[in-house]
Amino acid sequence: MRQITRQDLMDLAVGAAFLGTGGGGDPYIGRLMVQAAMDEGKTVTILDPSEVPDDALVIPTAMMGAPTVLVEKIPSGDEAVASLRRLEAHLGRKAFATIPIECGGINSTIPLLVGALTGLPVVDADGMGRAFPELQMETFSVLGVRGSPMVVTNEYGDSALIEARDDKFMEWISRGVTIRMGGAAYIAEYSMSGADVKRTAVPNTLSLGIRIGRCLREAKTNHKNPIEALLQMLPDTLYSYGKVIWRGKVIDVRRETKMGWALGFARIEGVDGWKGTMEIQIQNENLIARVDGKVRAIVPDLICIMEAETAEPITTEYLRYGQRVVVVSVAVPPMMRTPEALEVFGPKGFHINEPYTPIEQLT
Amino acid sequence: MRQITRQDLMDLAVGAAFLGTGGGGDPYIGRLMVQAAMDEGKTVTILDPSEVPDDALVIPTAMMGAPTVLVEKIPSGDEAVASLRRLEAHLGRKAFATIPIECGGINSTIPLLVGALTGLPVVDADGMGRAFPELQMETFSVLGVRGSPMVVTNEYGDSALIEARDDKFMEWISRGVTIRMGGAAYIAEYSMSGADVKRTAVPNTLSLGIRIGRCLREAKTNHKNPIEALLQMLPDTLYSYGKVIWRGKVIDVRRETKMGWALGFARIEGVDGWKGTMEIQIQNENLIARVDGKVRAIVPDLICIMEAETAEPITTEYLRYGQRVVVVSVAVPPMMRTPEALEVFGPKGFHINEPYTPIEQLT
Repeated sequence: MRQITRQDLMDLAVGAAFLGTGGGGDPYIGRLMVQAAMDEGKTVTILDPSEVPDDALVIPTAMMGAPTVLVEKIPSGDEAVASLRRLEAHLGRKAFATIPIECGGINSTIPLLVGALTGLPVVDADGMGRAFPELQMETFSVLGVRGSPMVVTNEYGDSALIEARDDKFMEWISRGVTIRMGGAAYIAEYSMSGADVKRTAVPNTLSLGIRIGRCLREAKTNHKNPIEALLQMLPDTLYSYGKVIWRGKVIDVRRETKMGWALGFARIEGVDGWKGTMEIQIQNENLIARVDGKVRAIVPDLICIMEAETAEPITTEYLRYGQRVVVVSVAVPPMMRTPEALEVFGPKGFHINEPYTPIEQLT
Repeated sequence: MRQITRQDLMDLAVGAAFLGTGGGGDPYIGRLMVQAAMDEGKTVTILDPSEVPDDALVIPTAMMGAPTVLVEKIPSGDEAVASLRRLEAHLGRKAFATIPIECGGINSTIPLLVGALTGLPVVDADGMGRAFPELQMETFSVLGVRGSPMVVTNEYGDSALIEARDDKFMEWISRGVTIRMGGAAYIAEYSMSGADVKRTAVPNTLSLGIRIGRCLREAKTNHKNPIEALLQMLPDTLYSYGKVIWRGKVIDVRRETKMGWALGFARIEGVDGWKGTMEIQIQNENLIARVDGKVRAIVPDLICIMEAETAEPITTEYLRYGQRVVVVSVAVPPMMRTPEALEVFGPKGFHINEPYTPIEQLT
């Protein structure tokens, strides 16, 4: 158990952008919201999963929808709290803690905001181990926790409590509700016991986000190569392997917003001896990287595009022609690579025909 | 209080098609479902509004979506019962009775099916006094009963409980859910007290539907003119005035399914001394009838197209080139013509610029 500091928050914003693998939305807005709550004297406590009693009720909270919409209507945080409270009322029980559904992008910070506003602790773990675009793409779901009942609330207090036959249909219905609520809404779902958290969540991913941000920051302060420093740190985590898979210049970016997602690709021409052009396919997140048709990294392993000069992670919406970038791929934890997990958020979950090959074998 | 007979059901199917003014879906399927329940020994009791205790809980039940979809996936009736039960659980109270939200089309029969399956009585009244395409178009809503909380359920048991800022936004969100549930779903909404039923419902509209069907049937049996017989009966009801406003031949029908509705128009060339061509504009229901640009009848007054030979009401989906038809317009009850009511389901509610003029003044 420990309290989040302002420096933690700033580091997390960078680390969560890295773990977002291009998607998940810019954590910057989430950071500002939590900081504003801290300015009013609120605090945020994070708990190791081992500190959650087995019979405690844990309710994940998150933003749902297009992060691009979020920028236009910054939430007060009450929306996510309202979803949590409505789910509590429906379950007839109070939550002991909240937890992120994903540790990449803005959704690493929404539970911190809920924690600040309600006083609930936030469990240092999540259900994606990165960012994914759909709600069924959760280790929670793969390992048997049900997403329903789920509550969606918007900034006007409109809400929908959804009970669906499975988590994929829950995603389908709640996506429709979110679109009609204006494209961004706040959710509570996958309510579970402390025992389920320990069994199904990817552990210590809030800490990991903070560590990644801190590692990059300290390397820069000490005039070391930040990306090298990061790759050296990873073997000490569940994300045991990371590698630079490309260096180059962005020569083409295609993006369209369709069905509520950012779909497209980026093409990166090699420099510094990297010959050829890497093409990265995107559905909010970076899904697969190919050079001349040959796979160099594939979902669910992380594919992160970073600015070559500053080592800043670049989210999909900020990709631009001419950027000098380094592409890093990172192995996800073993619990995200089981056949059952790959069925849901491996290549097949994104209608990609190539089989999954771990990044360790591709490099 | 009285039990519905098989003959009542058959008469209601015809009368509800008339009160549907082209929309509301073919009551035939609803009739078959109630008959099937009766074949299993179930009964349906209808109550006069005066027989409902002031403090009783009444929960309306209905189908939502495109009636054309309904034909492809006939409901078991359990869907609407499931919505009612979920709303009861949310409210923490059992319903004393159910009631139709509209008396035209299939939704005059869905509450009868719920009544047959649950044993709950059905209140002989409704919230539209006809059929309308949207859920905020209710005398319930105009007179202050709130549509939320509302439950939508489909044939797989998926459900959404919606709480919206107003009844128009409830319509917007639940329409989105219904579309993603496959285009047809079953709802419970506008839960209210017996006192509210007496204050806000259009009374005795189930009886009216039965009476209209019986009147047309008996006239045919007795070789009288059915439409004449109907127009003579009306002054004895709250629908105090009816008139033939056109006779002709359908020469053009345009229909498209857009945003979940059937939108379009029908053109009817006059015969038997009716000179010119009547154009009827449609959003599921017949909204406005014009001849050479001059308004002959306008929503919310009823505009019913009937087959000239058989006096069968023709619903929008069965309109065809070449049909010989009689168009009848009927005055709606005074409670549906107040400024507040016209604001919601008068011409303005359908983005029609012409002001409302009662049918009595147009003929």
